[in-house]
Amino acid sequence: MTDKTLIVSAPGKVILHGEHAVVHGKVALAVSLNLRTYLQIGLCSNGRVQINLPNIDTCLSWESAALQFLLTTIDADVLNPKAASQEQVDKLRQFAGIPDGCVDTRSLAILCFLYLYGAISASSRQLPSMEILVWSELPTGAGLGSSAAYSVCLAAALLTANESIACPVPEENGTVRWAEDELELINKWAFQGEKLIHGNPSGVDNAVGTWGGALKYHAGKIMPLNRIPTLRILLTNTKVPRSTKTLVAGVKDKLNKFPSIIGPILNSIDAISCECERTLAAIVAGDSTEESYAVLEELIDINQHHLNVIGVGHSSLDRLCQATALHSLHSKLTGAGGGGCGITLLRPDTSPSVVEASKRALNDMGYDCWETNIGGHGVSLHSPSSLQRDVSQLLTRLTDCQ
Amino acid sequence: MTDKTLIVSAPGKVILHGEHAVVHGKVALAVSLNLRTYLQIGLCSNGRVQINLPNIDTCLSWESAALQFLLTTIDADVLNPKAASQEQVDKLRQFAGIPDGCVDTRSLAILCFLYLYGAISASSRQLPSMEILVWSELPTGAGLGSSAAYSVCLAAALLTANESIACPVPEENGTVRWAEDELELINKWAFQGEKLIHGNPSGVDNAVGTWGGALKYHAGKIMPLNRIPTLRILLTNTKVPRSTKTLVAGVKDKLNKFPSIIGPILNSIDAISCECERTLAAIVAGDSTEESYAVLEELIDINQHHLNVIGVGHSSLDRLCQATALHSLHSKLTGAGGGGCGITLLRPDTSPSVVEASKRALNDMGYDCWETNIGGHGVSLHSPSSLQRDVSQLLTRLTDCQ
Repeated sequence: MTDKTLIVSAPGKVILHGEHAVVHGKVALAVSLNLRTYLQIGLCSNGRVQINLPNIDTCLSWESAALQFLLTTIDADVLNPKAASQEQVDKLRQFAGIPDGCVDTRSLAILCFLYLYGAISASSRQLPSMEILVWSELPTGAGLGSSAAYSVCLAAALLTANESIACPVPEENGTVRWAEDELELINKWAFQGEKLIHGNPSGVDNAVGTWGGALKYHAGKIMPLNRIPTLRILLTNTKVPRSTKTLVAGVKDKLNKFPSIIGPILNSIDAISCECERTLAAIVAGDSTEESYAVLEELIDINQHHLNVIGVGHSSLDRLCQATALHSLHSKLTGAGGGGCGITLLRPDTSPSVVEASKRALNDMGYDCWETNIGGHGVSLHSPSSLQRDVSQLLTRLTDCQ
Repeated sequence: MTDKTLIVSAPGKVILHGEHAVVHGKVALAVSLNLRTYLQIGLCSNGRVQINLPNIDTCLSWESAALQFLLTTIDADVLNPKAASQEQVDKLRQFAGIPDGCVDTRSLAILCFLYLYGAISASSRQLPSMEILVWSELPTGAGLGSSAAYSVCLAAALLTANESIACPVPEENGTVRWAEDELELINKWAFQGEKLIHGNPSGVDNAVGTWGGALKYHAGKIMPLNRIPTLRILLTNTKVPRSTKTLVAGVKDKLNKFPSIIGPILNSIDAISCECERTLAAIVAGDSTEESYAVLEELIDINQHHLNVIGVGHSSLDRLCQATALHSLHSKLTGAGGGGCGITLLRPDTSPSVVEASKRALNDMGYDCWETNIGGHGVSLHSPSSLQRDVSQLLTRLTDCQ
């Protein structure tokens, strides 16, 4: 029984260029991925707090009274987000029955919720009743920023629910976003959620989830790009598992083994990111779009070769690139490599038949493949009627199941 | 009816690393390719000069008297090789009935022979009778130094025939080489032959044909490598035609378009050549051979990616690399790229079954493929019994046809 329902969403992210090189002080470009995480929050007065995460088969519900310990445990100022202390994390784990060292997706998602719920509620000394439903188009653990999209949605919804930020009213069939200072606050809380999940995140994923578009990440600094077009892509998940840590270590070893061979490659990747940034700006400015897309394709091909050279390629990614090349499309791995995901650039006029044929080829290889776009908007508040029909139906169906 | 017969041979060459980058001031490594050109010279007293080039269906024969004009046209000192003047070239063309501007293989081979024969004979003011038969394992026009091997063989045979250099006697079943100063003279005359054929050659091909082994080419300077092992390879000719000039121009355009992206790649290629040189020396020294071969393979893979990045790859070469990778072998293009030839490194212990399977796969793709080696000896004088049976039989058969 809900009094008021809000629906927010946040995008995932992909690395367009600069993965791995960024570890060695080079520029990386991260862009929003329009596979989104949707969060529906229903404020109610039934004295219960429920969180339902159907993607990971998790639904938990508590009496508000049982959560009162959060107010004594977490002494937070909603306008000055801070990270959970070890002591606080220990208490949350104990409450949720999550053993120390347990870092599965479900446990981390619950810890993140409990901390953000408690910390954002702490200033008002009230624990509101609510039913939260989170559903995501993003695969988890694929380097697509699914945890950040979750944290961003939670932060936006909880801050809106307790009126720490405004609740803008979307027009019929519309979507609205928050003011810049409110986005800042959402991002900061989302970053605290990310810390609970990842320990020492860069902050890139939650920034992309909050602001959308693209950002440049260099030497620990995050700089948003002002002018970025929305680009059509195929996002493909080879589903080949990989260890980011092992891959990063492998690049370091290779750099140590052949500094004068590998060092220049990292410089070349740095230059690719910068050239890509210039080209994206040129597309926004409407300068010779055909030529700009040809440059974007060339940069993708070059970087894919470089990523192979530094040892983070994989035969599954080679097959992805070959399959799309047969349709004159250009692909590269994104993120850690060694399997995982790849992106394929589509031009504005790439025909549906080419897209369908490519998707079919990739599906036939056992990969998951989505036609989506990058560079779109960040965290948003939706009117229910603005949602795509399938998302809307899904949320309704999942709500009915609660 | 011959009084004395000599058989000489010279190897082809492949670029191991540094093709294209060398145009931009980086190091290239050229190595001898043990696909050889064989020249049999029979000194006789029948007052005729005959040259038979069965690979290009050419056999010409002249009365010595008809060639007397060479002695008045070419005033050369056999110990101080010099290039043909334009006037001399014009007279040779006129004599041989080769129209101006005619640069087919046959015409250039004849011009080269006439100049070297005349110039090397000029000091002694005598035009010896001889029958020359040249047969090559090298495909022409494939960037494998076939013209240089031809020039080197001609220079060595003609200099030996007129006793400008010694005629070392190979042991039964043996092969001998000339002294260093004699090799210098052979190389210089071969270079003059190359100039007639190519206009402005680098001198790398004739140096490799003369000395064998490997040499470093950098900023117009040729430096022999002292320590180089013989390496087993597959040499594959995709038979895809390409224009070296267009490919070289394409790399320059790409470098001008993306200097900060492509520039570092050329530096990386430079470092690959240097690392390869160190690794070859380590193999000769017997240091951890397994590891050294792994490095050679890694350098091949990296450079093949780089060559694709600078735009000189080709789908035929990608298929070559993929086919050999299926057998855990590592390949790269060699020379101009855009088709043409590729080399595949074999380890000392690569099994015959792997080699055969790879060759079969490459043949099935329509490519020519030879199992041979690189880094072997340069121009040599053979006892007939030292020749491989098939080469010996072929020369005999071709001689009988004369």
